[in-house]
Amino acid sequence: MTDNKITLPESEIPTHFYNIQADFPTPLPPALHPVTRKPVGPADLAPIFPMGLIQQEVSLEPTVEIPDQVRDIYRLYRPSPVYRARALEAALDTPAHIYYKSEHVSPVGSHKLNTALMQAWVNKQEGVKRLSTETGAGQWGCALACACKLMDLECMVYMVRVSYDQKPYRRIMVNTYGGNIVASPSELTEAGRRALAENPDSPGSLGLAISEAVEDAIKRDDTKYALGSVLNHVLLHQTIIGLEAMKQMEMAGEYPDYVIGCHGGGSNFAGLAFPFLKGRLKGTESKLRVIAVEPLSCPTLTKGTREYDFGDVAGNTPLLMMHTLGHKFIPPPVHTGGLRYHGSAPLVSHLLAGKFIEAEAYSQEDCFASAIRFAQCEGTIPAPESAHAIHSAIVHALEAREAGEKKVILFNLSGHGHFDMAAYEKYLSGKMGLDA
Amino acid sequence: MTDNKITLPESEIPTHFYNIQADFPTPLPPALHPVTRKPVGPADLAPIFPMGLIQQEVSLEPTVEIPDQVRDIYRLYRPSPVYRARALEAALDTPAHIYYKSEHVSPVGSHKLNTALMQAWVNKQEGVKRLSTETGAGQWGCALACACKLMDLECMVYMVRVSYDQKPYRRIMVNTYGGNIVASPSELTEAGRRALAENPDSPGSLGLAISEAVEDAIKRDDTKYALGSVLNHVLLHQTIIGLEAMKQMEMAGEYPDYVIGCHGGGSNFAGLAFPFLKGRLKGTESKLRVIAVEPLSCPTLTKGTREYDFGDVAGNTPLLMMHTLGHKFIPPPVHTGGLRYHGSAPLVSHLLAGKFIEAEAYSQEDCFASAIRFAQCEGTIPAPESAHAIHSAIVHALEAREAGEKKVILFNLSGHGHFDMAAYEKYLSGKMGLDA
Repeated sequence: MTDNKITLPESEIPTHFYNIQADFPTPLPPALHPVTRKPVGPADLAPIFPMGLIQQEVSLEPTVEIPDQVRDIYRLYRPSPVYRARALEAALDTPAHIYYKSEHVSPVGSHKLNTALMQAWVNKQEGVKRLSTETGAGQWGCALACACKLMDLECMVYMVRVSYDQKPYRRIMVNTYGGNIVASPSELTEAGRRALAENPDSPGSLGLAISEAVEDAIKRDDTKYALGSVLNHVLLHQTIIGLEAMKQMEMAGEYPDYVIGCHGGGSNFAGLAFPFLKGRLKGTESKLRVIAVEPLSCPTLTKGTREYDFGDVAGNTPLLMMHTLGHKFIPPPVHTGGLRYHGSAPLVSHLLAGKFIEAEAYSQEDCFASAIRFAQCEGTIPAPESAHAIHSAIVHALEAREAGEKKVILFNLSGHGHFDMAAYEKYLSGKMGLDA
Repeated sequence: MTDNKITLPESEIPTHFYNIQADFPTPLPPALHPVTRKPVGPADLAPIFPMGLIQQEVSLEPTVEIPDQVRDIYRLYRPSPVYRARALEAALDTPAHIYYKSEHVSPVGSHKLNTALMQAWVNKQEGVKRLSTETGAGQWGCALACACKLMDLECMVYMVRVSYDQKPYRRIMVNTYGGNIVASPSELTEAGRRALAENPDSPGSLGLAISEAVEDAIKRDDTKYALGSVLNHVLLHQTIIGLEAMKQMEMAGEYPDYVIGCHGGGSNFAGLAFPFLKGRLKGTESKLRVIAVEPLSCPTLTKGTREYDFGDVAGNTPLLMMHTLGHKFIPPPVHTGGLRYHGSAPLVSHLLAGKFIEAEAYSQEDCFASAIRFAQCEGTIPAPESAHAIHSAIVHALEAREAGEKKVILFNLSGHGHFDMAAYEKYLSGKMGLDA
């Protein structure tokens, strides 16, 4: 009997990240300065990011080494298993083989820790004592707080007020890891005080929380800012997912026809997909379908246009060439907080423009139905974000049944849903409403 | 470098549970009928349990086979890894080697699924269509709901009203697995209706929920009752934990000086400890210390007396020979819901009386402090129950530092704390209060 779980020994934790920029047939358009509209240089970014990460952001080297200390801490949860979803296959009565990479096994419950640890390490090498960041639903804030504690750095998280009040569990998790967390807008920054002066009851926004975290980093010599998705170096760190998965699929004796990840800012999708795309970029592989899955309610890749746009609502970040719904776009309050982003990762956008990948959008209702189907077969309750990848996998597994073809499908289970049970309840009680 | 994670392939999932009764030098005193006070026979138990489990309850065979279908489903999360807690060792500056068996990796987040799956399977073989049970904080209810879905049975959970209202997430989890769950007291049973007639706002109790679940099983031909701890067959099923851990410690090239588990009803402690006790029972091993850890506020093993007592508050269950604080004892509302039980498993009690194991009790404050220390070193946030095992491990690791001795400590991380963040907040904000 073949194993359900395909596990690698810790000695097989990759030694290098894969830098997809090195294999791009056309170069990635550079980020532009928000005022001058000229390409941003290292000096522009130095106040908020350490030089090591700025270099990774623009590197064209094919690989970036993973330091021993980071690999050592990765051993707490890496290599993560690839599972064969045999019970789901049986329930779907499909000839397709469905595999999933299980990033939900990380101590914080998602893939976010992969980049958080690497970012913390680079900052520490450059003498940084403290990292600031923003968080919406709290997934990224928890990951950075955990990484900072494991690397012996301080952590400061600005959490959007409405989530801070409504979703206390991730806030407490940040505290449990010894991190500091405040509701944004806060009294700690000028941006926060300005917002509170205008409206003392402001619910906050991700854009405002970014402004606070960046201001915090700029004002303090001991502090840099950390971002959990979108940027090149963040996606680079996540490629450890796909590098492991390629070895694991080889162990399973199969090669995927489909590689699927959900897409918000792009990091978990990129993490699984980029290593598999090398062959397509080099023209040696044409069969593989690589699919980014987004919510119908925030259809950045399927309905957005590709143009230079700001990463934040306020328009303070560098301009990024990306698929975007416009930086003023406010996504409806769907429960998949991690997919509520107006833009996309420039690297993912570049690949979509080059037709190396595809994008699909599904309704929240359909994705929750598939999430529950998955949980009832495989046991694990997925994060609502990951449910989008699951739904796409099921759609293509059912297509394979119709066609009578054995397809091999690999998707990324980017996180578990233990902190999202309220969203499940809304779905189960029929109160979720259609978002499309 | 030695691996942090010691993993077994799925082929090494044990084929048999270990039945410690076969190695007892003196037999376990039988359970007595609550009215006649004569030993209960199979006929007394048949209305609520399937014959296969009744046989396991009294079996003196050294092993009980694990059916292929159960082993197949165990592959979703078993064998669970044993971790070496290197960062914790470094933080404690101890020469001790600290290992933990990670039962928190199960899809429901605890060891409870091990017995839930086996119980569901036995019931299914005997034509049972539906299982009823009670749950307090919800851990066991979730495990049984998941097991029933994976085995294609219906599940009916009576959840203590106060938890049903205050801890909605585990209730939703039961629904996500397709289980039915109602607040107890409910209108569905005579016991529930009687309680509601007396007090329409009754907060319920575990004892009352048991009464409802048992009545449900007795009244319906298609339904049996399932229990998540205390009884012999439940502890038997959990021995898969220790059987795997013994192989894993052998792979690590070490043998434990200490084997530690938290103790409420006894199942996770027994699961890890029993296989390691075989040598002590046979007189071939004398060095090993096996420790059950309980809260100071509910000191069943350290302060209770060993006598025949009821398993429930109402006095309807068979009388069990066990360490007990008296079946009328109401533990204070500590956050470690899984350890709030007036009694203990008869098998564990028998071993304690025979001095084959030891018991320790610690305050909740100390256990939370150790839980946070663990989380900040190892990443994983433990369940408050498991925190008791962690605290004992830390106590003995610090003793080893004082003595300058290299000791090998193995404890059971029985569950994660994702659904217990409110308790962490109380601790972190200083609002927990001392329980001893």
